[in-house]
Amino acid sequence: MIQFDFAVPSLGTPKLSSPITLSKVYGDSIANYVSDDEQIIYHVNYGPEERQEGFKFSDIGTLQKAGPREKIYFNPDHVRAGVLTCGGLCPGLNDVVRSVVRTLWHRYGVRTISGIRYGYNGFFGEIHNSIMELNPDVVDDIHRIGGSVLGSSRGGGERTGDIVDSIERLNLNQLYIIGGDGTQKGALKIANEIQERGLKIAVIGVPKTIDNDLSFIEKSFGFETAVVKATEAVYAAHQEAHSAYNGIGLVKVMGRESGFIAAHTAIASHDVNYVLIPEVPFELKSPNGLFAHLERRLEKRQHAVILVSEGAGQDLMHADTTSLGTDASGNKKLGDIGTFLRDRITAHFRSRKIPMSLKYIDPSYIIRSSTAIPSDSMYCSRLGSNAVHAGMAGKTKTLVSLVNNHFVHLPIEVAVQTRNTVDPESSLWRDVIDATGMPMKMTNTPE
Amino acid sequence: MIQFDFAVPSLGTPKLSSPITLSKVYGDSIANYVSDDEQIIYHVNYGPEERQEGFKFSDIGTLQKAGPREKIYFNPDHVRAGVLTCGGLCPGLNDVVRSVVRTLWHRYGVRTISGIRYGYNGFFGEIHNSIMELNPDVVDDIHRIGGSVLGSSRGGGERTGDIVDSIERLNLNQLYIIGGDGTQKGALKIANEIQERGLKIAVIGVPKTIDNDLSFIEKSFGFETAVVKATEAVYAAHQEAHSAYNGIGLVKVMGRESGFIAAHTAIASHDVNYVLIPEVPFELKSPNGLFAHLERRLEKRQHAVILVSEGAGQDLMHADTTSLGTDASGNKKLGDIGTFLRDRITAHFRSRKIPMSLKYIDPSYIIRSSTAIPSDSMYCSRLGSNAVHAGMAGKTKTLVSLVNNHFVHLPIEVAVQTRNTVDPESSLWRDVIDATGMPMKMTNTPE
Amino acid sequence: MIQFDFAVPSLGTPKLSSPITLSKVYGDSIANYVSDDEQIIYHVNYGPEERQEGFKFSDIGTLQKAGPREKIYFNPDHVRAGVLTCGGLCPGLNDVVRSVVRTLWHRYGVRTISGIRYGYNGFFGEIHNSIMELNPDVVDDIHRIGGSVLGSSRGGGERTGDIVDSIERLNLNQLYIIGGDGTQKGALKIANEIQERGLKIAVIGVPKTIDNDLSFIEKSFGFETAVVKATEAVYAAHQEAHSAYNGIGLVKVMGRESGFIAAHTAIASHDVNYVLIPEVPFELKSPNGLFAHLERRLEKRQHAVILVSEGAGQDLMHADTTSLGTDASGNKKLGDIGTFLRDRITAHFRSRKIPMSLKYIDPSYIIRSSTAIPSDSMYCSRLGSNAVHAGMAGKTKTLVSLVNNHFVHLPIEVAVQTRNTVDPESSLWRDVIDATGMPMKMTNTPE
Amino acid sequence: MIQFDFAVPSLGTPKLSSPITLSKVYGDSIANYVSDDEQIIYHVNYGPEERQEGFKFSDIGTLQKAGPREKIYFNPDHVRAGVLTCGGLCPGLNDVVRSVVRTLWHRYGVRTISGIRYGYNGFFGEIHNSIMELNPDVVDDIHRIGGSVLGSSRGGGERTGDIVDSIERLNLNQLYIIGGDGTQKGALKIANEIQERGLKIAVIGVPKTIDNDLSFIEKSFGFETAVVKATEAVYAAHQEAHSAYNGIGLVKVMGRESGFIAAHTAIASHDVNYVLIPEVPFELKSPNGLFAHLERRLEKRQHAVILVSEGAGQDLMHADTTSLGTDASGNKKLGDIGTFLRDRITAHFRSRKIPMSLKYIDPSYIIRSSTAIPSDSMYCSRLGSNAVHAGMAGKTKTLVSLVNNHFVHLPIEVAVQTRNTVDPESSLWRDVIDATGMPMKMTNTPE
Repeated sequence: MIQFDFAVPSLGTPKLSSPITLSKVYGDSIANYVSDDEQIIYHVNYGPEERQEGFKFSDIGTLQKAGPREKIYFNPDHVRAGVLTCGGLCPGLNDVVRSVVRTLWHRYGVRTISGIRYGYNGFFGEIHNSIMELNPDVVDDIHRIGGSVLGSSRGGGERTGDIVDSIERLNLNQLYIIGGDGTQKGALKIANEIQERGLKIAVIGVPKTIDNDLSFIEKSFGFETAVVKATEAVYAAHQEAHSAYNGIGLVKVMGRESGFIAAHTAIASHDVNYVLIPEVPFELKSPNGLFAHLERRLEKRQHAVILVSEGAGQDLMHADTTSLGTDASGNKKLGDIGTFLRDRITAHFRSRKIPMSLKYIDPSYIIRSSTAIPSDSMYCSRLGSNAVHAGMAGKTKTLVSLVNNHFVHLPIEVAVQTRNTVDPESSLWRDVIDATGMPMKMTNTPE
Repeated sequence: MIQFDFAVPSLGTPKLSSPITLSKVYGDSIANYVSDDEQIIYHVNYGPEERQEGFKFSDIGTLQKAGPREKIYFNPDHVRAGVLTCGGLCPGLNDVVRSVVRTLWHRYGVRTISGIRYGYNGFFGEIHNSIMELNPDVVDDIHRIGGSVLGSSRGGGERTGDIVDSIERLNLNQLYIIGGDGTQKGALKIANEIQERGLKIAVIGVPKTIDNDLSFIEKSFGFETAVVKATEAVYAAHQEAHSAYNGIGLVKVMGRESGFIAAHTAIASHDVNYVLIPEVPFELKSPNGLFAHLERRLEKRQHAVILVSEGAGQDLMHADTTSLGTDASGNKKLGDIGTFLRDRITAHFRSRKIPMSLKYIDPSYIIRSSTAIPSDSMYCSRLGSNAVHAGMAGKTKTLVSLVNNHFVHLPIEVAVQTRNTVDPESSLWRDVIDATGMPMKMTNTPE
Repeated sequence: MIQFDFAVPSLGTPKLSSPITLSKVYGDSIANYVSDDEQIIYHVNYGPEERQEGFKFSDIGTLQKAGPREKIYFNPDHVRAGVLTCGGLCPGLNDVVRSVVRTLWHRYGVRTISGIRYGYNGFFGEIHNSIMELNPDVVDDIHRIGGSVLGSSRGGGERTGDIVDSIERLNLNQLYIIGGDGTQKGALKIANEIQERGLKIAVIGVPKTIDNDLSFIEKSFGFETAVVKATEAVYAAHQEAHSAYNGIGLVKVMGRESGFIAAHTAIASHDVNYVLIPEVPFELKSPNGLFAHLERRLEKRQHAVILVSEGAGQDLMHADTTSLGTDASGNKKLGDIGTFLRDRITAHFRSRKIPMSLKYIDPSYIIRSSTAIPSDSMYCSRLGSNAVHAGMAGKTKTLVSLVNNHFVHLPIEVAVQTRNTVDPESSLWRDVIDATGMPMKMTNTPE
Repeated sequence: MIQFDFAVPSLGTPKLSSPITLSKVYGDSIANYVSDDEQIIYHVNYGPEERQEGFKFSDIGTLQKAGPREKIYFNPDHVRAGVLTCGGLCPGLNDVVRSVVRTLWHRYGVRTISGIRYGYNGFFGEIHNSIMELNPDVVDDIHRIGGSVLGSSRGGGERTGDIVDSIERLNLNQLYIIGGDGTQKGALKIANEIQERGLKIAVIGVPKTIDNDLSFIEKSFGFETAVVKATEAVYAAHQEAHSAYNGIGLVKVMGRESGFIAAHTAIASHDVNYVLIPEVPFELKSPNGLFAHLERRLEKRQHAVILVSEGAGQDLMHADTTSLGTDASGNKKLGDIGTFLRDRITAHFRSRKIPMSLKYIDPSYIIRSSTAIPSDSMYCSRLGSNAVHAGMAGKTKTLVSLVNNHFVHLPIEVAVQTRNTVDPESSLWRDVIDATGMPMKMTNTPE
């Protein structure tokens, strides 16, 4: 079992009294300040290994609870905060921005909050009007719309020096960076550069990954909304497939390295027959491959629905996927498994002279740009306010996260080390197999 | 002004009393039977031409009101009805089927109703289990789902002889055919063949065209649902465009020969900047073309949304579009204007070295397979029951339609003569120009 | 057959050239100006009466087409427009306001537009900040939310003198009044007072009636949205009823004097068994009354859904309903038929010792405050722009309306004379009877 | 810190091999059987108390993981399972039923599954047709509709002897009981009676509580759907309030003893100003009471939204609430706080001569009968299959539950001991205070 160092960096000892009035005792029906030594254990499994002599849950690592501190590091009058959203769209971005702004303004009395437009690229002065003043009036209704009012874009995070120059010019001392794996790696470099320059600037990340693939993040915001919208697309595919003779509905959803959206959607929709994800290899033409199973199903039921993650089956398209290069976010470029499968399945049934009608749906942009559903909206709201509590307390290089249903602080360094993926031996994948009735393997030879 | 012969063919004089009990007088608070001489005038404009001496509205043509007749042609005990859905999916198909079945069963006491599966192709015995017995239990909840429970497919309608052979084998004497232009042309041929063989089989059409392009059909069922769903896709495109620097959202919607969905969606969504439809030619590269307008808009507003009908701009792709051939429904095959525009716009901005981010959304299958919204569901329900009233009264080669808010009978022959298109001089298109702020023309030289 | 004088009053001859550039000829692919002599016939029935010698459709009355005129009455630089929303909420109010403001601003170049807050009551200076400056930025996103950004309230319209005093003080010369029957009666009085004072102020009404009960208005805006939301409430009632032993779901919807919402919802939802509307009397306890039918249905099917308009069955509660008085809008006060039925049905089954579980749902506020669905949003947009075209052309005492699918001008005087109600002998009510399977009468003795 | 005995009762040692093929080793990419000694720790806080010498998390109690066992207790050929839903409706009931039936049928090969209709009352033979045979075809589409296809009702659970008689007559050996606190107390009595009679019948509960008030159940199914629907009602109230001068929107939601729905909805909707829940007392007329705060807010903002749990403020209505008695589920009867507040607020402002317009919305039935959103649907699906795994393994008197994101077995005895309530000192309630800006207390004197 691996130990994690979940201690989070700090700019210094917080010495100022928080303007937020809370209690210090339990029993007065008033919420209490949270202290750094209130922690949450991460590892909750209790099996043979944990039953052994000398085992301590705390040894594996405990995470600091997030929340308002009694003492804060920054004088609110001197705070100049910056907020930015990076990478692809995700439901809830505006909810997080709204919450950050409102908590800074209403709870701490901060009056200088700047939105950096279009992600890291807004720092370089190359885009017109790239700084946007934020206050509660500006953000009042933004949670009702999708997208990001700040704008977002990929890349730019590698220009660490330029960014810190810009931060200095803008005189910012708190930075709230909403973004995914690549963005947070960039945030870490920025924070390191800040430290090297001897500056006192808090860098707080809010993890954004519609794919749910960040480690130690129980549930990424926007994920449930994504599943709702993906389920609607699967419903369309099901109706198209069901209404045609030998109809096949093929839906591609987000999931570059992890198949969580596909897995959850398959269980939630009850309409999917085959789920293809990056974590589980599959073959097309072999006797136990997808085509053989599809043929048998069409013969028996005359329709089928396939749900594929964008990162699935890359090996089928490219012997060496590294040759495709990376995008501006530093993500490996992917071949388009959706159109690839559409064309290969069509060709296969044509060659077999079996009538078939395939409808391909790619709902990605409709999913990403959607307004957050209430549970996501609430989650975003709480992530945003906890990020501000962390920043005001002088934490840095820190993400806010949810672990075992508690909001916690997580060192960015730990979060970006590994990816969260669907374990084929997990109960989640077992339940996907159960819900779909698909074969546990669609390869001939075990790996 | 053109005159229309709106008289509808009939199998013979209806002599049997209807099992439906209604009134024959007005004033007793009981609905009355409808008689053939209750008609609706089609032409409602009253301008200089109509003010002239001797002008009569009725000369242009009046349409028979649909509804239950006092005398019917068929003995319900002897009716063997067939129902089928043809062509692409459209919201409301199941609502129409449900209504046809329930009206036959509950209102007239008909007990033998067959669903022909997968459109005309279900007649040929080449598909397993292609006949499906229908009754109120089977159809009770089908309006809650999209698609067609009967299944649908393109083509087959040209095999007139085989179809009539099959109809004879199945011993059907009423046929309810739900489908579009090509389908109804096929229905007319079938009805003619039936007549030539001296058979007494009513052929009633329910016009289905998600594009709203059938003449004399005020509003095609499923159209409003399509606009609702298309508006959602435009909203996604707007959020994507708005959240990116120089973001362009491009949405392709149905509309092979008419741009009604695009026009209505543009006004309803309030988010579209350019609407491209088959009826209005446009250029790409000329000084007054789309690219020039896009450049100016991005410079001024940094984002733009384009909505394109699938049939728009075919001349830009193919000097001679007839060379593409036709699909199984007899429709001219179209080049894909969506991906064409996506690629050309991207190439243009790249060559001009203007940063730009384009997101392309094709929501067609999500739109078509959607459940009908309540107003459509109600409309379908009324179309279906009026179709049955027509069939039971012995009408044939007849469509049910809505004209000036009244349900009427329309000869199929008249309906398939011309297409309904967006008139660029209409108030509809004027309102699109107003709502979008787009230029009235994007060509250099007036045609 | 009644003749109507559909001629609309005017402030004088429009002599100024419109700033809107349109065409005057057909065939150049550019929309044309609309002239006053382009009219629409109202009466489209063509039966025995209309076939008689000498009958002319135009004799019954034709309505002027709405739309932009070539010549306008007001110099846009001098226009000071006021907009207000009166009475209960209705989906689409903000869409109309948005369209009025945008058409005035973008099409005509008007720069002074005032929102009068909280309906007529905003005129009296008794409410703080009751005037709100409007421009395209203020209204840009208001169609995305329900309610009225201007605020609305009942009453005040009877203080004609005070209102005209206020209009004079505010220096307004165009008034756009969005409201129902009572509001438009008030608007007429205001316009008369304006005329008596010799002022040149255009008073244009946009008819708002979620009940769809204004005469000569084919479809009131917000109505389709109301049916969508009412259908959702009926669905809930159906599930509650269906999930209980002898479950009864009872839903009350809007409809003070007309049962259109109930009738459309019943057909659209497919889940209603009994529809009770103001136009069709019913009894409770008589052998053919509601209770007897309910008992039989529960015995047979164990569940039932009842949909009742708020104005139905008033005679059952009050021998003399006039005694209840009127509300601030001048509407007759109604007894609460929903809770009345709930209590009486419960008491009846208790006395009969039949187990029964009734769930009562009143979704009125959820319906009224909803955002408009796209078809309504589009309709509102077109109503608003046509209202402005009418105002700029110097029309007054005029409503914009839709008749036979054309936007027309309608004299307020004509519109407020009678109410639009559900005719029990119409095809609409016949289709309700068909869809629900309810008895045509639930009274013992024909009236 | 309290210790819990989370050990679950069992009918005997499972000795038969499961028909489900899984793996026993990790690393073969095949999911593994779950064994009884795989457990989950419940208590995850790690503060001063837990840091003390000798503290062990496992001492507080660990819960058995749910999931398929290698050995099962029942021979699938001999299983006769019964399924029932009890109490008020809750989104997801049909999803659970569907999953139970499908897992029994497809995974274990059980072929005799009976639905007991209308909860415990279906056992007594007093209702016609109270047993309904279930199989995958019957349940295939039931997740698409709300309510319970089995029907549900309150009460009956106290007739323990009659129920066990009936179970014996029906020859059932597995019972899946979906219901809340009262239902599960009944289930425990039934299981005890079964044990006393020496029968081998597994009694498995699936906890259903839309209020989220069952202890040790991290998230009750249907809860998120309830929040989505409640948020819609709050939105309506907000629009009504915002569109009126001094408008007050008042919404009552479910929550008899706990205010979770209200708390989550308040944070998610961003539109609520005052949240009233059973856990936090409040006064009306005192200087720091609700009325005083309302007055100040209306003066400042002219509108307000109040969200109240049905169980809040009972002390304001009744000095002694025990006098109201209990309903058939054994729940304490509550006074109607919604209409009480409506009337009192109205009277207060009238007496103070402050104009005010209050709109009251009670969306309870619309919420309860709603179809589950995808995340709930997925959760229900997994609860259902884990319930079956527990039953087949011979567990009894056991609930399936989610604890720290793992599905676990929970003894019914433990679950029904205490209620889950909103802790006023929790971060949840702190975030409600933050999101609404409401005062932390609306009483004069701290308790």
